[in-house]
Amino acid sequence: MYGITMRFVQFTKDGDRKLGLEIKDGRAIVDLNAANPELPSNLRDFIKGGDVNLKKVQRMLDIDDYALNTDSVRLEAPILRPEKVLCVGMNYRDHCREQGATVPEEPVVFGKFPSCIIGPQDDLHYPAETQKLDWEVELALVIGKEAKHVQKDQAMDYIFGFSVALDVSARDWQNKLKNGGQVLLGKAMDEFCPLGPVVVTKDEVNDVHNLGIRCRVNGIIKQSSNTNQLVHRSEAIIAHISRFITLKPGDVVLTGSPPGVGFTRNPPEFLKVVSTLK
Amino acid sequence: MYGITMRFVQFTKDGDRKLGLEIKDGRAIVDLNAANPELPSNLRDFIKGGDVNLKKVQRMLDIDDYALNTDSVRLEAPILRPEKVLCVGMNYRDHCREQGATVPEEPVVFGKFPSCIIGPQDDLHYPAETQKLDWEVELALVIGKEAKHVQKDQAMDYIFGFSVALDVSARDWQNKLKNGGQVLLGKAMDEFCPLGPVVVTKDEVNDVHNLGIRCRVNGIIKQSSNTNQLVHRSEAIIAHISRFITLKPGDVVLTGSPPGVGFTRNPPEFLKVVSTLK
Repeated sequence: MYGITMRFVQFTKDGDRKLGLEIKDGRAIVDLNAANPELPSNLRDFIKGGDVNLKKVQRMLDIDDYALNTDSVRLEAPILRPEKVLCVGMNYRDHCREQGATVPEEPVVFGKFPSCIIGPQDDLHYPAETQKLDWEVELALVIGKEAKHVQKDQAMDYIFGFSVALDVSARDWQNKLKNGGQVLLGKAMDEFCPLGPVVVTKDEVNDVHNLGIRCRVNGIIKQSSNTNQLVHRSEAIIAHISRFITLKPGDVVLTGSPPGVGFTRNPPEFLKVVSTLK
Repeated sequence: MYGITMRFVQFTKDGDRKLGLEIKDGRAIVDLNAANPELPSNLRDFIKGGDVNLKKVQRMLDIDDYALNTDSVRLEAPILRPEKVLCVGMNYRDHCREQGATVPEEPVVFGKFPSCIIGPQDDLHYPAETQKLDWEVELALVIGKEAKHVQKDQAMDYIFGFSVALDVSARDWQNKLKNGGQVLLGKAMDEFCPLGPVVVTKDEVNDVHNLGIRCRVNGIIKQSSNTNQLVHRSEAIIAHISRFITLKPGDVVLTGSPPGVGFTRNPPEFLKVVSTLK
């Protein structure tokens, strides 16, 4: 609507962590902190600052002057150190079916730690404690405003935008027989939430519940679905969680994974260690 | 050993949040930031700063000059906004027995959010979503150094000190039939982790696994046990969690609750709303 698509990233360049805007179909990153030194250098503070920050970006006229070749920067996770990372499980009908599980009537909510978040160019180190590391691609919601006891029909007002995440899962620690049936250890090991690179504002998305969602492993498509298959949609998830827990600006909510994860395949498939000697 | 017992608190006085030391059996609080303006004003940064900060406090000679009457300050939670709050469940034999549960071979780990932490003088607002709000008093560990893959016999090196916490629990949301059996919603609602007021350094405690631990509700003792009844002790808990998750300075680990909680009583007892009109 302003000619600039609001696709926010965080990136590092020459050791500085900065806030950026992805343009030119991902080929360039605008250094927003160079374009306007008043803007925060991280997206969480930018969101906390409210609409005034968004307006500053929308009004920028000379962004091309601050564009960097994407290859010349390191893309980081778009949100770091949120107060909370929440996840919804069993939220695609086909994913329930592939596990032989019934579709939950209410969202099933579990947590990760902020320390799980890594960026799209970071390595995930295969933990010694698992032999069953699995992928789960998910639509991620980024909270824009403090949300408590929010009704479903108001819930979209509390979302800043959307991103994509992997709910990395250690299947040998995420089952009924381990850790008293609590999935935390299988879901919240270090680096178990690769996120981003982009957070796109909600205004830029025509219908967030009609988006293709895919996961490739070494170039091979393992998951391919559409967010129209979500059991509990973004608004219902925000309404449900906010019955119990105050969501804060910058909090990240993963909405569940479509079918095609490794452990339900026949034979089961898991991620493997790739040497990254450089 | 220096004549000053290392009992740290956070407090507010005239709107300022400060780091303090409890002295005179709790009757006075030393304003450490007034005594030495170089010290951080919160305990998490103090811990991150390492032993040099502890030494500065131990060497103070004139602390009485900076002592405030405890009644003149507001005691806050001693740790705010840690990266992580972890909890161990089913960790007293008698508490397992009162629930008819077997004693877990390994610690059962679940999480709260940093936003659960409130101070000892803060109100806990009874959430609309529960009618079964219950108490669980627990020994809390405060992490002193980054800990990953720590062996049990080294684990105490990674603990800064100890506090006391309530693992407030909504029993109607913490059971196998709700939220897919995941306890997060029943354990991590807003304000579900009253903490403190004091963090005492480990050197001050002769044997952390031989301490009385009690919970009073309206003056009546509901839980009374000893940490010598812990199934998995502090070192085993740190060793276990650090297999999966990097513990960071200031992280808080609740070690489980002794018997005497409300929901296992006959008849069951729960916390009740107390009007706090002032």
